[in-house]
Amino acid sequence: MGLLENINSPKDLKSLSVEELYSLAQELRDVIINTVFKNGGHLASNLGVIELTIAIEYVFNLPKDKLIFDVGHQCYAHKLLTGRYKDFSTLRQTNGIAGFPRIEESIYDTATTGHASTALSIACGLVRSNPEGNIISLIGDGSLTGGLSYEALNDMATLRQKQIIILNDNDMSISKTVGYISRYLNGVHSGDAFGEYGLNYLDNIDGHNIEELINALTYAKNSKRSIVLHVRTIKGKGLTEAEIDPEGYHGYSPKHWDKPSFSKIMGAKLAKMANQNKDIFAITAAMEEGTGLEIFEKTHKNRFIDVGICEAHAATMASGLALGGKKPYFAVYSTFMQRAFDSILHDICLSNLDVTFCVDRAGIVSGDGETHQGIYDVSFLRLMPNMVIASPKDSIELENLLDFSLAHKGPMAIRYPKGNIRIEYSIHEPIQLGKWEYLNRNDDSNIVILATGATCVSVASHALEFLKEEGINPTLINARFVKPLDSEILNEIKGKTIVTLEDNVLSGSFGSAVAEYYVENNIYGVKLHMLGINDKILKTASQPDLLKDNGLDSYSVRDFIKTLK
Amino acid sequence: MGLLENINSPKDLKSLSVEELYSLAQELRDVIINTVFKNGGHLASNLGVIELTIAIEYVFNLPKDKLIFDVGHQCYAHKLLTGRYKDFSTLRQTNGIAGFPRIEESIYDTATTGHASTALSIACGLVRSNPEGNIISLIGDGSLTGGLSYEALNDMATLRQKQIIILNDNDMSISKTVGYISRYLNGVHSGDAFGEYGLNYLDNIDGHNIEELINALTYAKNSKRSIVLHVRTIKGKGLTEAEIDPEGYHGYSPKHWDKPSFSKIMGAKLAKMANQNKDIFAITAAMEEGTGLEIFEKTHKNRFIDVGICEAHAATMASGLALGGKKPYFAVYSTFMQRAFDSILHDICLSNLDVTFCVDRAGIVSGDGETHQGIYDVSFLRLMPNMVIASPKDSIELENLLDFSLAHKGPMAIRYPKGNIRIEYSIHEPIQLGKWEYLNRNDDSNIVILATGATCVSVASHALEFLKEEGINPTLINARFVKPLDSEILNEIKGKTIVTLEDNVLSGSFGSAVAEYYVENNIYGVKLHMLGINDKILKTASQPDLLKDNGLDSYSVRDFIKTLK
Repeated sequence: MGLLENINSPKDLKSLSVEELYSLAQELRDVIINTVFKNGGHLASNLGVIELTIAIEYVFNLPKDKLIFDVGHQCYAHKLLTGRYKDFSTLRQTNGIAGFPRIEESIYDTATTGHASTALSIACGLVRSNPEGNIISLIGDGSLTGGLSYEALNDMATLRQKQIIILNDNDMSISKTVGYISRYLNGVHSGDAFGEYGLNYLDNIDGHNIEELINALTYAKNSKRSIVLHVRTIKGKGLTEAEIDPEGYHGYSPKHWDKPSFSKIMGAKLAKMANQNKDIFAITAAMEEGTGLEIFEKTHKNRFIDVGICEAHAATMASGLALGGKKPYFAVYSTFMQRAFDSILHDICLSNLDVTFCVDRAGIVSGDGETHQGIYDVSFLRLMPNMVIASPKDSIELENLLDFSLAHKGPMAIRYPKGNIRIEYSIHEPIQLGKWEYLNRNDDSNIVILATGATCVSVASHALEFLKEEGINPTLINARFVKPLDSEILNEIKGKTIVTLEDNVLSGSFGSAVAEYYVENNIYGVKLHMLGINDKILKTASQPDLLKDNGLDSYSVRDFIKTLK
Repeated sequence: MGLLENINSPKDLKSLSVEELYSLAQELRDVIINTVFKNGGHLASNLGVIELTIAIEYVFNLPKDKLIFDVGHQCYAHKLLTGRYKDFSTLRQTNGIAGFPRIEESIYDTATTGHASTALSIACGLVRSNPEGNIISLIGDGSLTGGLSYEALNDMATLRQKQIIILNDNDMSISKTVGYISRYLNGVHSGDAFGEYGLNYLDNIDGHNIEELINALTYAKNSKRSIVLHVRTIKGKGLTEAEIDPEGYHGYSPKHWDKPSFSKIMGAKLAKMANQNKDIFAITAAMEEGTGLEIFEKTHKNRFIDVGICEAHAATMASGLALGGKKPYFAVYSTFMQRAFDSILHDICLSNLDVTFCVDRAGIVSGDGETHQGIYDVSFLRLMPNMVIASPKDSIELENLLDFSLAHKGPMAIRYPKGNIRIEYSIHEPIQLGKWEYLNRNDDSNIVILATGATCVSVASHALEFLKEEGINPTLINARFVKPLDSEILNEIKGKTIVTLEDNVLSGSFGSAVAEYYVENNIYGVKLHMLGINDKILKTASQPDLLKDNGLDSYSVRDFIKTLK
């Protein structure tokens, strides 16, 4: 293609002319579009910062100068300019280039980031470490809605060390940026606002004009004071359909589900329930589309709440709705739910308030790497008093559990993976608290598999088919509740060899709960095996590969069961 | 005394004259001072809001109008005016009046609050529930430094429903309020700031002038728009020594330790280590005195960081220090550490960064009730990859573990209870990762107690003395590491009856880790008993009573061990 293949590090940019930098931008745009259409990934946000990234790496001296990406999903151009062009076709693939910055991947990646609003806090630590170079944070307007950014700005106001904040303002986070910040940034006051924080401020920099960017960044580099550069970019720049629908092109997935996703089914069911029940509210933290709530917003606009990227506020605000007698549902990705930990524990569980969490992207997640795995929520929810945790085995059971949640009083989490699964086992029927379900009952077998969640029930069902071919026919139970457990079944099967199957870390999780149950009930000698993720970090790979790596795919489970025969 | 004993609900205030309200304020002040000097509790903050509380309850119609306390430790006058005067002598005692608002305790307590910055988020939920009355948040300037407050303000700007925010500005949080917010509130800009959020604003209301307060609150009540009342109060008002030293009188404890607290020992040791090691930084989130860091600030001012009530920022900022090659120590109460959950997991553990957490007030906490228990941290830290968790048995071992942490690479938590313990077992010696210690080894006994943490080792040691009197002499092990476990010892004792002892919830905790260990290593038939807190909420009571209630005091442990004989 020309320029890009000869860029091995940002140093190689310095000799290029501005015209060549524009050509390079076009090459980057082509590579990114082609790769994302093939591999999936974040598209609109990456297309929006190509010229900005070129200008930053042209002006500054990375890695002595440190560039911190807030969120990090907009790092593709950065990766392509820092020695990762040749491997870029492996983006988001197993053993490939990660979709987010990773300190293990490159000295040019300052921090491993995947969650929003962390950059300014990291920067406050880095400047205090007395670095030789500049500390540059690249943060979107959406990330500024997170309270962590505000805590950092407040801290920054007391710091004397210089830092550079590049505000990438595309007037979107993932959904349209909500609330005050958006209005504020678009008003006349942003200079005043940052000025109050003791920060120098340059406004209205065209994020697609490389000369203008270089000029502003050079000014910032030579400035002695901390400075905010307010750069206006267009999300999806250069790809017409993405410019028109940046939320639709925020993430692009080449795989098309032949069935609607759990998210869509959840959203449709909740909207339907809300027709009957006027107390239902749906809450999202800037993930309306991802969590399937579009239909809810369309049909119940007054009871749909998007708070922006503020998971803690979403949960604590939900506690207020519950205190006011309403029935709030907070739909949130498992990994982002981590950010509301204390709001769930302190503000909801301690008071046993009636808030339901629809935990999307629970379990192993394809492509996004370690920062987006949903493999911790069973453990961190299980320790909370009053919390009920359920994992439907398929989308019909998801609907059954939503029906259940309506009558349930107290906090509840219903967790389901990305996408959908291929097998539908369920019929519409009422569900009882803590009751599991025999999917294959064979009292003559000495082996019982307790599988929890759609992915693991599906894996176990396939393993069962393989095993049956070999004349092995273990019992399979759908452990649809992780808390409380089904003590009746656990007592029934205590003499068997029990295998728990989950795609969560093992520490404190479902298998651990089963072990605790037998200990607490003085039942000894139970032959228990826990299959799950054994205290390791799951890096970028496909979900099938990650299942396999952790012995959680159908073949591995089959082989494991055979060792028990 | 006169007026107070005849106030059974806020309605009874309405007939009083302003002079009588001032007399009532004096009565409240006397009751609060006397009760706190006897029972311990929060003093300065309560003395600061007496007139304000009287005026609020005089003007509004509680409980139809809802009053939300941010943090909640300033609720004593409220409790005395809402039917709890007769029981107030039981403040913070077992089965007594809680030191924080509790929805189970009174219809006048709108929400159960004990952590900072939650009120505005709760208010955003409550106003959306379409209440009949006013929603009034009473929030201190310190609570505004928390990002959650900012997330709520941002949400509020999009809301049309009216709410009332009373900003109790004493220019302190617990330590002197840090950073920008403080400067801002004391500047001329606070009206502008709130105005930007679409809020009406009244400044400079004297928080000790009842007429002025009634006038302003009546204005707010009759206003159609949301409004902020900026009330200036004096923390510790009416008690000279508390006015002079509000941080010293923030909390008052009638009990005097005959030994320095773990907090003080940690602070002194860290300051000493910092003399040698120039990379050490100490971080607090507005708890300099509580966490024992005063000496560090005095001796290493440039490496002492108080970020305000911002635990998430403190942790993520620490990740930045670690990325810059520094060695940060974040001293934080266990219950407040919950607020940094994702910062610890996503920003520190996933990158295996070198941040040490000095987890103060771990385990069961006296007096403060359910919102301040340190009984979740073992479970929520154990699920995080790369995290090392240690609990010293006494203060010398705390020092040994701090020495250990200096050489350790990666995240580590050292957890210790409030106060100190009476027995010192340790000598100064190097500690090895994951190694436990036999405190009493009797290979002839079939019973092994694995106690973790200073409280439980102390309890077990006393139980052992009692048991020895009865001729029972079990082995006692100091399980000073919860992660990793001592696999050598666990293998040695697998044939014994094992009792784990901890003052943490059982779900996912230390006992659970031991159970997991045997399952993961295919060791069956182990007779394990887990003593800890069994998925229940610990309400206001003394630490000894809570230990007893949960079967964790020396006598209960003795009796339990005897059932095993």
